[in-house]
Parts: sequence; structure tokens; C-alpha cells
Amino acid sequence: MTTRVSKTKKDRAAAPKQGELTLGPIYRSHKVYNEVEHTNTDGSTTTLRVPARAIELTTGEEFEVYDTSGIYTEEGLDLDLEQGLEKLRDGWEKPEPAAASAAKPDLKVQTQLAWARAGIVTPEMTYIAHREGFTPEEVREEVAAGRAVICANHKHPEIEPMIIGKKFAVKINANIGNSAVTSSIAEEVEKMVWATRWGADTIMDLSTGDNIHETREWIMRNSPVPVGTVPIYQALEKVNGDPTKLTWEVFRDTVIEQCEQGVDYMTVHAGVLLRYVPLAADRVTGIVSRGGSIMAAWCLKEHKESFLYTHFAELCEILAKYDVTFSLGDGLRPGSIADANDEAQLAELRTLGELTRIAHDYGVQVMIEGPGHVPMHKVAINVEWEEEWCDEAPFYTLGPLTTDIAPGYDHITSAIGAAIIGQAGTAMLCYVTPKEHLGLPNRDDVKTGVITYKIAAHAADLGKGHPRAQERDDALSKARFEFRWHDQFSLSLDPETAIDFHDETLPAEPAKTAHFCSMCGPKFCSMRISQDVKDYAAEHGLDSVEAIEAGMAEKSEEFADAGGKVYLPISEV
Amino acid sequence: MTTRVSKTKKDRAAAPKQGELTLGPIYRSHKVYNEVEHTNTDGSTTTLRVPARAIELTTGEEFEVYDTSGIYTEEGLDLDLEQGLEKLRDGWEKPEPAAASAAKPDLKVQTQLAWARAGIVTPEMTYIAHREGFTPEEVREEVAAGRAVICANHKHPEIEPMIIGKKFAVKINANIGNSAVTSSIAEEVEKMVWATRWGADTIMDLSTGDNIHETREWIMRNSPVPVGTVPIYQALEKVNGDPTKLTWEVFRDTVIEQCEQGVDYMTVHAGVLLRYVPLAADRVTGIVSRGGSIMAAWCLKEHKESFLYTHFAELCEILAKYDVTFSLGDGLRPGSIADANDEAQLAELRTLGELTRIAHDYGVQVMIEGPGHVPMHKVAINVEWEEEWCDEAPFYTLGPLTTDIAPGYDHITSAIGAAIIGQAGTAMLCYVTPKEHLGLPNRDDVKTGVITYKIAAHAADLGKGHPRAQERDDALSKARFEFRWHDQFSLSLDPETAIDFHDETLPAEPAKTAHFCSMCGPKFCSMRISQDVKDYAAEHGLDSVEAIEAGMAEKSEEFADAGGKVYLPISEV
Repeated sequence: MTTRVSKTKKDRAAAPKQGELTLGPIYRSHKVYNEVEHTNTDGSTTTLRVPARAIELTTGEEFEVYDTSGIYTEEGLDLDLEQGLEKLRDGWEKPEPAAASAAKPDLKVQTQLAWARAGIVTPEMTYIAHREGFTPEEVREEVAAGRAVICANHKHPEIEPMIIGKKFAVKINANIGNSAVTSSIAEEVEKMVWATRWGADTIMDLSTGDNIHETREWIMRNSPVPVGTVPIYQALEKVNGDPTKLTWEVFRDTVIEQCEQGVDYMTVHAGVLLRYVPLAADRVTGIVSRGGSIMAAWCLKEHKESFLYTHFAELCEILAKYDVTFSLGDGLRPGSIADANDEAQLAELRTLGELTRIAHDYGVQVMIEGPGHVPMHKVAINVEWEEEWCDEAPFYTLGPLTTDIAPGYDHITSAIGAAIIGQAGTAMLCYVTPKEHLGLPNRDDVKTGVITYKIAAHAADLGKGHPRAQERDDALSKARFEFRWHDQFSLSLDPETAIDFHDETLPAEPAKTAHFCSMCGPKFCSMRISQDVKDYAAEHGLDSVEAIEAGMAEKSEEFADAGGKVYLPISEV
Repeated sequence: MTTRVSKTKKDRAAAPKQGELTLGPIYRSHKVYNEVEHTNTDGSTTTLRVPARAIELTTGEEFEVYDTSGIYTEEGLDLDLEQGLEKLRDGWEKPEPAAASAAKPDLKVQTQLAWARAGIVTPEMTYIAHREGFTPEEVREEVAAGRAVICANHKHPEIEPMIIGKKFAVKINANIGNSAVTSSIAEEVEKMVWATRWGADTIMDLSTGDNIHETREWIMRNSPVPVGTVPIYQALEKVNGDPTKLTWEVFRDTVIEQCEQGVDYMTVHAGVLLRYVPLAADRVTGIVSRGGSIMAAWCLKEHKESFLYTHFAELCEILAKYDVTFSLGDGLRPGSIADANDEAQLAELRTLGELTRIAHDYGVQVMIEGPGHVPMHKVAINVEWEEEWCDEAPFYTLGPLTTDIAPGYDHITSAIGAAIIGQAGTAMLCYVTPKEHLGLPNRDDVKTGVITYKIAAHAADLGKGHPRAQERDDALSKARFEFRWHDQFSLSLDPETAIDFHDETLPAEPAKTAHFCSMCGPKFCSMRISQDVKDYAAEHGLDSVEAIEAGMAEKSEEFADAGGKVYLPISEV
């Protein structure tokens, strides 16, 4: 049931201004919140308000789509960024501690994994089930099996819970980072608002340099989606950028600092072992992971295993306390087609599997990061290896790029690999922008990257048979065939671009109901002719193979007489 | 051996002006022609000059790539569009007529198919063999088997021969059409020059309206690549756009007119049978092929099979005379995810197989057109069906689009499907531009469509193991790892865009040799750190698993002492 509706009067969201936030509804849609009853462990109930975006069709119907944009797409919003978002989850039940695992029955923790294993359906699970079209029990089972994760730090009550797992819709992540010179809280928050407006399911704050903590605080308090980080970046800043000065203590304190702020998942490159570094020596592109290269440098210098590996159990205890999810980083991922699926990559993946089992024993949720650059025929096997070696922990890949020869278009070279690896079972795709390998993405690049990855993720959902996926394709295609241009625009991933492209050649409003577009023109519009054919065939009883094969002469003549009418629309223009 | 070199002094091709041609070399490259000796049937030899583009690397080496741009990328060109290109193939041997097929041993024709079956290697085959890196005999075998086609009308001597077949590099087609108001020959020719500059292997002239014949003449006489058409479009213009007035005679005369002009392949929707029309009645998007909808209308009106089907043998005799290749059109291809792989589509495909065997009996080469809109999990089976039912005739598909929900981005939704179907064995991919479903593509859309499809085709070549494919990926990745920015740009599919993106944030020339870019900055450049790690590991004998596991203490200390030096580059900036 819809509890709050903010209709948009405009056909377009207000154009954002520099340094301000992009606010307001997306083209011909409004935010809705569906009320769902959750039953707590004590039998009491809590009402959850699950968000969606309702697209207003010209037929009078509404079409609801999964929505990550938070309150920022509501009409007439009154924001206080200093205050931050409502602490949604503070009002929800936080069940008693449960056994971390069968391996550690006496260790009691409060994580979605431990609760799921204990048979407890949390409010987050109920919320997610409604959001994705599954039952709460199905959600609990996937989390309990470690096949899905709910990235939700206890210290981040503002987020709208979401799930990352192969059974559910493929998710996408957008990376953001602070500017060299941070000018305002609005400017930093805008990057998150802009990425989630177009569909980013999570964001990673890869800020470096000054003001890391403050910038992250602004993002944490105002983000409706889970936030991930790579703690080694901030730790490196604390030792003035010199990896040789890195220590377990500096790293640990940084992790705790970020856990306290509410970071929901953290990339940790604990699989880069000393003996693996030489395996990357003869590669075409060596080590292309920032964290991976930093830890490799540290390992060689110290000539011992990294503190990320030797102190992994302590890390698990820290993350378990906050229910922060591990994103075990692939520090040795391939950076070129030539290096794909090599021993360095696979050796590290096996180690990530070992670490996954340790984390799971501590009741900590785990994702596994994957490549990178991989030619098409070597993509799917990556999922098979990951599932076999890492106990089916959700796979989270960067692309992969399926060729190296198109800098400037790597959102496309990687969308091909992303769609394939998503269909094969990868749970989340880290977006790649057109600026990959070339420079820092700007606002347009971020949007292009997000939309491109929504395409890859949706193509994968269709390919793997997600129960709800095809509904939107069918609704848009039906609108297309019926020349409901406004609906074709509003149902698309990026209405603004679709409208701009259409209006370049046929700007007038009447064209929005015309039975053709400038691509083929009125005479050659196959859909128009096709509709004439369909209508008149039905009218003259020629709409079945039987009728046709009966070769009904009189029908034929009668139809011929009507011919002028049938084809008038084609030739009259 | 290189016989003609036109070095570019500029780092950029001259920016084209409206109404003029885009001429001159592509960034840091020049045209080369390699001389190849061809042995004629009488034992004499002919020297063929096979074109390529030589990219000038900063290492002093040159990297040759397949090149479709004709003379237009030469330096200091003196063009006469009225005169047209040199009639290259007029100087080549045209072997005596050979038996059309085993089925028609007494019918003698002069087609690449008949000659290949007779064991004759034509100059075109020798030329193509060198261009693609195969032996002339390998090329002959594929053509003889009907698995590959050489689209080369005897009346089109200007083209540089190319081949379309699953064993060879995946090719791409770009559609062009005349403007509503044609202002100049240069403007029409520019569309072809622009598309082939970026890599279109063939172009289809889909002109409608006035001046069809004249516009096509300009394109034919100046195109270095094969040209395809859909004759039914011009035939329809001849009957004032009314399908009910179409007759076999009008169509036949149009085909002959186009054969005489030199058109290399023609789309004919002869598989749209009367009894198949009702199969499309309940589709979400009906019939989306222009030619298909026109013929469906005609069939219903006449209540009999189309003249394309009933006169197919006569069509074969006409095309055989010129060695024009059939592109059997999929008039009932699906136009939405919901309609993919349905009975209407498959029924027509079976009929196209029947027509393929007839054409092959007449010695006529054949391609089969394919979908369309297909979700990922239903893509590959399309190739299996086509190969089984159509005797492995080269498959030529439009995309397919893997989702319907992203108008404005259908070059991307379709590049995913195109790469997958190309890897599965599709020989040529018809490009889709960002304007698909929305309007007429402009100059930028055409370039985006071509580059996007070069990416899909190349990803497919890597995926299916084309012997030469990975060389370019390796060369570019090596340049990337060695921070040879100019080489990374020049080896890319679109140097201009790569440069523009890089220079947005680091425009200065010194940045072209800098060991980082603005994406990660100097401190966090993994490739830079990785190189330091590699160099110093080697220097200190820590570059093997054995050395590492030996845990050589003194090496470790010695290396630790050198640590300052190792990491200086990382922290000094």
C-alpha cells in the first residue's frame, strides 16, 4: 500500500547547479513507500516502509521499479545535511547475540549471518524480501548459507537495507572520492546523490588526501545506500604515503575509526602473500590493484606475510562487533587480457577462500572481489572457481574488460564482461566509467558509468531468469509498439537522454503521439505497417494459420477491397 | 613489403568541415600497401597491393592494423569524386566460368563460390588471405563450403576485397542513408568515408525518397568497402510508397538496376511466407523489419506467397551474373525481449535455409540475417539453429539487443549481444547507434556506433581465438604499463577521444610521459608501484618463489636497507 506520494508537476527533474544537490522526482514518476509488517522475535510487529519509484504511465497505470535514490527524489524536500538522514533502523529490533558459527558456538555476535544461521528473520531481511520479490525465509536462507550479504553496519542506521547475492537482482557499485580541494558538504554529498539517483546500489568512498574523515562523515550521514571503503588508503595517509611505515596498529585503528563511523563493507587485500608477488613479476601489466601493489611492496620490504593476513582473526573480531562485511580484495587481479586467469590471480583467490572460512567462523559476512581484464571465453570459469574455492560467497567484480584496445570506451568493453559474469552468478558489479585508465571521471562520466552498468546488470538478470526482470522490458516494448512515446521515455533507465535524442529531430509535442519517428519516417515505420496488418488481418479473419491455409477466396477478395483502407496510412503521408 | 608511405606530420587528422570530406591520416599512423604476388590460372602472376594502417610507436617500431578507410587516410590526397576511385580489380584476372554447383553442372557462372568449388584461387582470395593472416587455400576452402562470402560485384571494381565468415575476423556494417535534402556529392560520400575511417567493413545504403540512384552512384564509385542495399525500398518508391502496387517486374528491374551499379550484396526478405504472418499477430512488437512488414502487407492483400519467394530462382540467375551476394533478410525478427526465438522467427529461418540451398545451387553466395532483440541466455542457440538449418552460411545479425529498457543506450544493450553472438560464430554485426528507436543518427552517433561495434567484434575475435586478435591488446597494455601515453592513444580504436579524456585533467605534454594519471594520482598509481616492486625484487634476487621461500635473511636485510630507494618514488611526490 502506498503511504506517501509526492507527485511531480514537472516533466523533468530540476537541472542541478554546481555545488548544489540534484533533487526532485525523475521524469513522470514519484516516490512511494509500501508498508510491510515485520514480526519481531518477541512476537510484536514493526511496520517497515519499503521505498520504490512509481512511474506514471499515460494509460493511468503506475509501474513500480526498484529505487536506490532515497529521499532525494521526493517532491518539495526540506533537507538538513548537517543533521543527516532519519536514523531509520534505530527503531527496528536488534535481536540478541547468536552463535557466531558451529565452529565457534560459544562466541556470540550480532550479525545478519549469525542471526540467519540461528533461524532469525531480521527486519532487514523482511524489508529486502519485499523490495526484491522474495519471501523473508528465502532471504534468510541465502544469508545463512553465506551466498548473500546484507551490508548494514549497526552504526549506519540511515541506510535502506539491500542484499547482494546471486539469487537476487545483480547490484552495481559506483566509486566516488573527494576532490583535491573540498569546497562544501553539498558538493561531496552530491556525488553520492547523483550516483544513486541513476541506480547505484552501493557506493565506495575512495577518498585520499586531506579531510578523509570529515568527507566520509558527510557521506555516511546522508547516504541511503551502503557505503564501502578501502581502509589501507586512509592508513597510508596516516603514515604520509610511505607503505614502509605501515603497521598493524595503524591499520587496526583506521578500521575501528571507520567502523565507528558506520562504513558497511571494507576492502581488505589480505590475500596478497609474499610468495605470490614473484608470480606477478613477468606479467604484461604487473599488479594493477592500488591496495595490492602497496601490500606487495610492504611484504617484499619486510620479507614476511602482511599484517592483514597475520592479524586476520583480530580483524574478524572487530568487524563482527559492528556487522561490517568483508570485501576481500583481489590485489593480484589481472590488468590486461594477457594476464587473465594466471597463477598469481588464482593463487590469491584460493587464499581468499581460506580467509572466507575464517571470517564465516567468526560470524562475519564476506564478499569476494574479482577481475579486472578477462577475454570473453575466460570469464565464466572465474565464477566457477570463486564459488568452489570461496564457499559461494557473493562475487563482486570490476567489469571485467573484455579487450584492452578501447581506452575512452571502457564502460563498454567492461559492460560486455560484466553482463556475462553477472549472468554466470556474480552478485555485484563495480562500475567502470569512460575515463577508466585516462583520468578522473566527471559528473557525466559517473552517470554514463552507472547507466551502462544498470544495463549490464539488467541484461544479466534477464539472462539468469530473475522472476521480475522482464516486466519492465515488456512494459516499455508495449509502449513502443503502441507509440506511447512518453511511456517509452519514462520506463527507460535514462528518460532525459531518450527525450533529448528523440527531440533532436522531432521536437514538437504532437510527435510524442505520432505513429513513427525520424529514424524510418512515416512511410517506412514497420511497427505502424505491422499494426495495420494485425488489425485488418483480425478484422478479416486472416489471423490464424488455419484461416490462411484454408485460402478463403471470398475473404481474400473482401480483404482486397479493404486494401485501400489498410494501406492508406502508409501512403497518405 | 611497404611500397607507399605517407607520413603524417600532424598528431591529429584535420578536423572535418561541414559538407567536406574527413581526410588525412589517423593519429600517429600512416597508410601502407603490402605487395603480394598472385598466381593466375595461366601461371602468370599479378602483384596485389594490400592496404594496412601502420601505427608509429614511440619505440621506433610500427604496428600494422587491418584498415578499411581506403585512400581517404592518405596524406596529401588529390581527390576527384566525380571520377571515383581507381578501378583496382579491372586489372585482375577474372577466371573462365565454372560449374554453378554439383546440382547444376551444366550451368556455368563467374562467382567466387563457383570458382572456389572448382579449386580456383582468385586474386580476391589471395588479397584477403594476406589481409587476414590466412593462406589463400584456407580462404578458398571457406568460400567453397559456403561458410564465407566475398561480396564483390563484377561491376564494382573499386573495392578492396574483404571476407565475411566465422573463421575470419568478425566484421561490422554501418547503415547510411541520404538526407531529406541532398546538398552535395561530398556530403553523401562523407558519410561513407566517416564510417569506414573508424572501421566499418561494409556499408548499407538505405536511402529512400528522391535521388536514390544518383546518391548511390556517388557512394558506389567512391567506396573502398562493399556496399549493400535493400532493393524493396527503392522499388516501393517507384510505386509511390504503396506496397499494394508492388510487382515482381518492378522489383526485378530495381534489382537489375542496382546490380548494374555495382551493389555487392542485397537484402531480400524472401522468407516471409503468407502462413507465417499470423504467427506474428500476438507478439508484443509485431513485425519490426521494414521489408518484412511491407511483404507481410503484400502477402495478406494478395493472399498468396510473395514474388520474392515465387521468383527466387530468377533472382538467383540475376545475382549470379554479377556475383552479387544474397543477404537473406529476417523479416520476422523479434523486436523485443518478449518475442525472441518465437515460432514466427524460427519458421522464417527454416525457409531461409531452403532458399540458401537454391541459391548455392545457382552458384550464388549467401548470408543470413538474424535478430534483433534477444536476452543473453537465448543468444547462442540462434547461431546453432542458423548453422544447422542454413548450411553454415555466414550469419549477419543486428545486435542483438539484450534488454529493451535503455533507449538512448542501445549501442550498449546491443554490443553485449553482438559480442556474445560474434563469439558464437556470427560473421558480421550490423551496428546500432545511440539513436536506435529514437531518431536519425547524426555524425557523432555514427562514430559511436562504429567504435562500439569494433569493440564487440574484437572482443568476439579474442573470445573465439582469432590468431591475430590479441596482438593489439598486448601492444596497448605494454604501452600502458610502460607509461608510453602516446602509444596507448595511437593503438586505441579512437585515439582522439582517448587523448581528449586524458587531457581534460592533465593537458600538459610532460603528462604524456608521466608515470601516473589523474585517476589515481602519483602516490596511488599501482602500475608505478608495481614497476618499482618488480625492478627491485629482480635486483635483489627476490623475483622467484624459490628465492622467497628460501627466506634468505641477508637478502632480506640488504633489500630492507635499499627500502628507502625502493619506495622513494611513491612518497616523494
